[in-house]
Amino acid sequence: MAMSCSSFSYKLIATQGLARRGRIKTPRGIVDTPTFMPVGTQATVKAMTPAALKDIGTQIILSNTYHLYMRPGEKIISCANGLHRFMGWSGPILTDSGGFQSFSLGKLVKISDEGIYFASHIDGSRYMLSPEKAIEIQQLLGSDIMMCLDECVAYPSTKDYIKNAVRRTSMWARRCLAARSEDRALFGIAQGGVYPDLRVESAQEISGLPFEGFAIGGLSVGEGRSFMLETLDATLPYIPHEKPRYLMGVGTPLDIVEAVARGIDMFDCVLPTRNARNGMLFTRNGKISLKQVRYKEDNSPPDCKCNCYTCRNFTLAYLRHLFVSHEILGSILNTIHNLYFYLELMSDIRHSIEENYFDDVKKYIREVYND
Amino acid sequence: MAMSCSSFSYKLIATQGLARRGRIKTPRGIVDTPTFMPVGTQATVKAMTPAALKDIGTQIILSNTYHLYMRPGEKIISCANGLHRFMGWSGPILTDSGGFQSFSLGKLVKISDEGIYFASHIDGSRYMLSPEKAIEIQQLLGSDIMMCLDECVAYPSTKDYIKNAVRRTSMWARRCLAARSEDRALFGIAQGGVYPDLRVESAQEISGLPFEGFAIGGLSVGEGRSFMLETLDATLPYIPHEKPRYLMGVGTPLDIVEAVARGIDMFDCVLPTRNARNGMLFTRNGKISLKQVRYKEDNSPPDCKCNCYTCRNFTLAYLRHLFVSHEILGSILNTIHNLYFYLELMSDIRHSIEENYFDDVKKYIREVYND
Repeated sequence: MAMSCSSFSYKLIATQGLARRGRIKTPRGIVDTPTFMPVGTQATVKAMTPAALKDIGTQIILSNTYHLYMRPGEKIISCANGLHRFMGWSGPILTDSGGFQSFSLGKLVKISDEGIYFASHIDGSRYMLSPEKAIEIQQLLGSDIMMCLDECVAYPSTKDYIKNAVRRTSMWARRCLAARSEDRALFGIAQGGVYPDLRVESAQEISGLPFEGFAIGGLSVGEGRSFMLETLDATLPYIPHEKPRYLMGVGTPLDIVEAVARGIDMFDCVLPTRNARNGMLFTRNGKISLKQVRYKEDNSPPDCKCNCYTCRNFTLAYLRHLFVSHEILGSILNTIHNLYFYLELMSDIRHSIEENYFDDVKKYIREVYND
Repeated sequence: MAMSCSSFSYKLIATQGLARRGRIKTPRGIVDTPTFMPVGTQATVKAMTPAALKDIGTQIILSNTYHLYMRPGEKIISCANGLHRFMGWSGPILTDSGGFQSFSLGKLVKISDEGIYFASHIDGSRYMLSPEKAIEIQQLLGSDIMMCLDECVAYPSTKDYIKNAVRRTSMWARRCLAARSEDRALFGIAQGGVYPDLRVESAQEISGLPFEGFAIGGLSVGEGRSFMLETLDATLPYIPHEKPRYLMGVGTPLDIVEAVARGIDMFDCVLPTRNARNGMLFTRNGKISLKQVRYKEDNSPPDCKCNCYTCRNFTLAYLRHLFVSHEILGSILNTIHNLYFYLELMSDIRHSIEENYFDDVKKYIREVYND
């Protein structure tokens, strides 16, 4: 039978304009917002030990229901006493629902009102995620923040197609709420493509349901930054103020400050971790590509103002050597640095909202990360 | 002009039979022997941060002159203030000379009395290592223990061929000593294939030179354990007792205890690190292959008596999941465990020699690692 959630809370601490500084409480710890969640798709944030995640100040990570459902399977994780024990991470975990894979897996997917039918990206075997199944799996994983199953549509799609996805997403949201049988937070997801009227419709419908938080889904799927920000402008007035708001799958440093400026509290993205493995570093002076020969003899750290393990101990020349030599340590050190950069950015944003200089942070990021 | 070394010393602390417990002092720290040196070929012990190496109690690592000469080049490392600063490892480093690559690179190599001519394994460009060049590079790297350039021959080779390699190795040993211009330890290397008379000849010639330590080279190249141990039996009586003795490129846990039993003090091998990346773990109960489906739901650590980060925090089911999912964290956690196992084995060996129960350790390893 349906269960509500009493173990989760959000408190708004300060605002500057629409930007919000807040704090989420979960049974597994506090999350200061705006927050960035490193992505741990396969029950690991790639190249990071849990100890390293803790060292850089990670408060919450994201993991993926679809991927864990495929491999190793939710039963194996449940029999390991849940995802936290399985992967050795004791802090909060937000799990997505698998709805994003209705978009990202393209032809491997069929969708009906019942749910999403997948052919596994690993071995082609068939799986189905209904709203009920998505909740069941997230509960077995032991998620601290569960996400509703939604239908995330590709960009561009016809208005009729998106209208139907919005209808289905609302229906599934109710079924997810009804399927929850444990005291765990559950977030609703608003869809609607880049159509302001559909966005408003979806936001209003989802906001009318008793979720612990609200997500904007279906953005950062190719529509471009201006469409994304316009959509946020159109949608956020219809999302409750007293709950956390999560912009799924976003984004670059510039995406993040622009979204914070509009009232977003939570982010996740593979960018810092994936780019790290591709030899791209985020710094206070912009991006660095270790592929460039100019770093061959550069004995300075990636960012001389950065206090991460990598910048305190290693040079660009060494990181470039590791990258061109395909050494695992390159991925490790670059990931530590990029995640540290993102978490520091979030910390700067939070502090700036408290102290009323968020506009300066925004201006700085607009200058340095303007692409 | 030739320089001797006053900054390096070896002290014999205890013996049991031929097994020796000793201590090496270098300007960068102490090395308790018998010791195992993790291999950091490309200026990184694969998948390990220097902090993680320190955590597991690593006292000394090995790095490879040939590989660093090829990439990034000894000048880049020298301009980074040496290999220690470049790779962020402040403890002692032993560097091989590149002589092993005269064997391992096979057709990419031509050898004359002048030196070894290489076609780079990376881009085919041409390099030469003479005894003088090998010492020059190792000094530029800032090595704590340099190795002489030797000619390591394939197994099997004709006696005439090996005789010539022994002659050349002795000649090169003298040239290496003459080329040393800094106060750094330099070890000689005895060769001789599996011919006891050539081994004795080489050992006597090298032992007559003023090195800080002596290595047995050219073993563990396919001759098999019994030939290797017979060769040690034939050779070690002619190697000085008052200096450390290093068996290059060895080996399995069984190889190590058998060689310690014959009087070897130092080892290096890629086995623990390479096997880790291939999903093979060393434990007190023998080897584990994470490929095996039996570990799919096994919620015990790899070795319940092991105190490493991996065993304290993760299960076989999780490590198997990381391995089959090709996750970098799998390589990291397996490497931490395997190196910890090797370093613990060496610590047990040292303690057992002090306390006179080395035979028990040997018996135990013979039972558990008998292949």
